Amino acid sequence: MSDGGAELRLGLDVGGTNLRLGVFSDLTLLEETRFQANYSAICKQYPPEQAWQKILQETAQAIKPLLQKYPGIQAIGIGFPGFIDPQTGVLAQSPNLPGLLNVNLGADLTQLLGFNVRVENDANAAAYGEYCRLGQPAGGMLYLGLGTGVGAGLVTNGQVWVGQHGYAFEAGHIIVEPGGRLCGCGNRGCVEQYASATSISNAYAEQAGQRLTAREIAVLAEQGDAIARAIYVFAGEKLAQALATLLKIVDVEHVVIGGGVVAAWPLLQAAFTQRLEHDLIPVLRGKTQVHLSCASDQAGILGAALLAG
Amino acid sequence: MSDGGAELRLGLDVGGTNLRLGVFSDLTLLEETRFQANYSAICKQYPPEQAWQKILQETAQAIKPLLQKYPGIQAIGIGFPGFIDPQTGVLAQSPNLPGLLNVNLGADLTQLLGFNVRVENDANAAAYGEYCRLGQPAGGMLYLGLGTGVGAGLVTNGQVWVGQHGYAFEAGHIIVEPGGRLCGCGNRGCVEQYASATSISNAYAEQAGQRLTAREIAVLAEQGDAIARAIYVFAGEKLAQALATLLKIVDVEHVVIGGGVVAAWPLLQAAFTQRLEHDLIPVLRGKTQVHLSCASDQAGILGAALLAG
Repeated sequence: MSDGGAELRLGLDVGGTNLRLGVFSDLTLLEETRFQANYSAICKQYPPEQAWQKILQETAQAIKPLLQKYPGIQAIGIGFPGFIDPQTGVLAQSPNLPGLLNVNLGADLTQLLGFNVRVENDANAAAYGEYCRLGQPAGGMLYLGLGTGVGAGLVTNGQVWVGQHGYAFEAGHIIVEPGGRLCGCGNRGCVEQYASATSISNAYAEQAGQRLTAREIAVLAEQGDAIARAIYVFAGEKLAQALATLLKIVDVEHVVIGGGVVAAWPLLQAAFTQRLEHDLIPVLRGKTQVHLSCASDQAGILGAALLAG
Repeated sequence: MSDGGAELRLGLDVGGTNLRLGVFSDLTLLEETRFQANYSAICKQYPPEQAWQKILQETAQAIKPLLQKYPGIQAIGIGFPGFIDPQTGVLAQSPNLPGLLNVNLGADLTQLLGFNVRVENDANAAAYGEYCRLGQPAGGMLYLGLGTGVGAGLVTNGQVWVGQHGYAFEAGHIIVEPGGRLCGCGNRGCVEQYASATSISNAYAEQAGQRLTAREIAVLAEQGDAIARAIYVFAGEKLAQALATLLKIVDVEHVVIGGGVVAAWPLLQAAFTQRLEHDLIPVLRGKTQVHLSCASDQAGILGAALLAG
């Protein structure tokens, strides 16, 4: 199949486990590829420089057949988990890809492919994807992604707010429980220790002595497992605390919540709604529309594609 | 004295107690007036409509002689404590001026004076004043004002971030002590219950049984009063917690701290610095320059004047 030369974009979403690619014509997904690339495992297995070369090669190999199949591709964008300098595109550090320090994915891939590649933080890419799907609301949109961690991004006037050093909207590290669970950032009580898929799995392992995924725990909760239910209720409450803080700071009407945990939203919802109402200042109550991701988990590849140009 | 027709701006800062006015030529203050207008007391004494008329008249009376003396005044701006709709200029509500609901200070004063008046939230005006004094740093600037409450404002690319409904940067209501002191917003543990002048006075009254101002308590602290010292140390710690949260969200390099409490900064500083370092995520550590207000308490009138056009 050929696209006949129409203007297309390719978006990638790099995770610790999965690599996903999507070819888009405007907002429409023409083709999606997803496979286990296990970049986290590569980073643990090989020295940093070697791991980086493997990641680059594997990413380039995944892109090439799509470039051949869709000659209309005009832009390639990648959502990458980590801190990316907005000026230089250099990835300072990636919590999910340990050992990678100060690498330039955009520049290295551009050289390897002979095609300009733009790299964004993955949560920012997802935020931009959701913003476009929502019809670019005039007052902007805040995205919260509940996955391995808790990511966030703000888009206003068509621009992603990256901050001065590219570290803005590290909302997963908003402290909602001072002295609480230890976080990878070195601090305690960060919201991603309560409302991410990882943290739900950890909490259940601690309290019930069984290692299950967040999704499996959701099934147990629906079946009446009291520990599982309480963990989801607590996740909803902690997420609401973090969102209330965010809204007091950015004051946007539209909030989109995405990521895998959203599949279990009915388990969080009541606690979330009650706590959000409680924690907001009175003038902000009732001013927020919370949407669940309408782009399922395609927002990341869509946003990366659209931001690429 | 006449200014000979040079382009001047008039800035006002409306507080619950004081009314301040300043005539500026660019960043230079030509004349300042300050007096006790007691608008808070007026609001408590009279029904809302009557109180509003008195406030309008008094404000207009304060402005008129300066307009006569400085015919070069091209713009009048007012910093006002409260929630101001960015589209309409309507003041939804003002915590310091109880009873005032949905009044339009800008429109009413414009009519009364025959001169266009622009109204801004007072913390936003102060933020803009500090930003201009700091030379409009490229990556933007965050302002925190420690006065009656804790106000904040963010300026980037010459724009004050007001949010969709004008409620952005209500940083005084960032919760730093869940279940802590009751706040005027109805919640518990907001940072302004620990780091504002009011809260320092309240804490000392509770713990030492004596009602003093924050400044008097600072003097006692310097003389070795253990309760007074501990209150300032705690204020520094709570302020740092709130700032760490803000920086994780907005990621700006320059932070200016202003307001009356800054006069006692040496009492807060060690606890503030230690806690800020502790609470930030590693990539953000060492990336922030904290400045104490270099515009003393003139930032509010300056920013109001400059924002007016």
